[in-house]
Amino acid sequence: MTELEAYLPFWGKLIPGQREQLRASAVRRVFEKGDNVRRGPEHCIGLLMVCSGQLRVYITSDSGREVTLYRLFERDICLLSASCMMPNIQFEVSVQAWERTEVVVIPAAVYQELAKTSLPVAAYTSDLMAARLSDVMWLLDQVMNKSFDSRLAAFLLEEAGESMVLQRTHEEIARYLGSAREVVTRMLRYFQDEGAVSLSRGVVHIRDAALLKRYARESLR
Amino acid sequence: MTELEAYLPFWGKLIPGQREQLRASAVRRVFEKGDNVRRGPEHCIGLLMVCSGQLRVYITSDSGREVTLYRLFERDICLLSASCMMPNIQFEVSVQAWERTEVVVIPAAVYQELAKTSLPVAAYTSDLMAARLSDVMWLLDQVMNKSFDSRLAAFLLEEAGESMVLQRTHEEIARYLGSAREVVTRMLRYFQDEGAVSLSRGVVHIRDAALLKRYARESLR
Repeated sequence: MTELEAYLPFWGKLIPGQREQLRASAVRRVFEKGDNVRRGPEHCIGLLMVCSGQLRVYITSDSGREVTLYRLFERDICLLSASCMMPNIQFEVSVQAWERTEVVVIPAAVYQELAKTSLPVAAYTSDLMAARLSDVMWLLDQVMNKSFDSRLAAFLLEEAGESMVLQRTHEEIARYLGSAREVVTRMLRYFQDEGAVSLSRGVVHIRDAALLKRYARESLR
Repeated sequence: MTELEAYLPFWGKLIPGQREQLRASAVRRVFEKGDNVRRGPEHCIGLLMVCSGQLRVYITSDSGREVTLYRLFERDICLLSASCMMPNIQFEVSVQAWERTEVVVIPAAVYQELAKTSLPVAAYTSDLMAARLSDVMWLLDQVMNKSFDSRLAAFLLEEAGESMVLQRTHEEIARYLGSAREVVTRMLRYFQDEGAVSLSRGVVHIRDAALLKRYARESLR
């Protein structure tokens, strides 16, 4: 399975026995668009390496509103689908195939054993954790400070008007909204991931005005 | 410094040179009640081991409302105060001494080096990350599903009435609110940490009815 070697940054630092164990236990799986990859903690299929397609990790509010925590694309690795091996993880997220998605599954027990015996794997795992923590913190901040996404969405709708196209750099948009370019860029990317806009150099195309209006109205919540 | 040996679960697995490095670089610091231990990423003082007292890690909303992410007590270790060493951490949290707090500070660079060279340290770091991720996910869930904390707060106020005391097990409260005991327990602990109630076997004492009323009214947000 060439993906193991290509996608696992620590592959080169594993000893032969560890590589053998991975090769022997990893299996390829395909999820069709919309498939639920994981539902709740009881469903612990293992570590997922995305080979093609896209996985969406989200939580669902009581009101049934789904909020995307983050998305995983080719070469990304989904740790939470192996959360059963992490005693400290006590929450439920849903993982859905956003499009037809091919993954390589590494059994949780195998990865757990690796993380216990290989320093590069343990270090990589904590880097992944930190990245996910950062994603979730960002989202929490958005939910707490719900003004900015609404303001940005409203600004995009107003500026684009009928044309549905906005010819502004993130820098300019940030200036208009009294924000920082990084803040604008990250929120625009979130909008793009959700399918509300598409981004190209200096141009924002509005793809789903209704969704954007909802952000403008009720924010990420 | 005896705390290093007593508080660091991986101490026994370090090689002598690593222990020396920790002993040589760790410094004791005391923060007075209310002191800001860390403000933003520019302020990266290193890894904090709480020896006594309590640290509160929180974010501040645009409206100025502070929301506690988690609290660190004796023997707890604050990683985020060393987040400058984690490229994947891109958010700002504030750390405040909730009471007079004595800590041992391990310089970020020293810990980073350790995590790169010691498997037990790397594994411990990812466990800590997972625990914090779990805390933040829980909080995000509360903010998204704002009904439960409000309902619980309202229930406590109503049941306790003038007496400010509620003689119910978490099990019973969960049944009344159509929830699970674990959910009630965790939220009651959050209320307790925030000073709204104090918990003892089968009894909930209301300590800050005004704060509880605010939860009942406007939820965690």
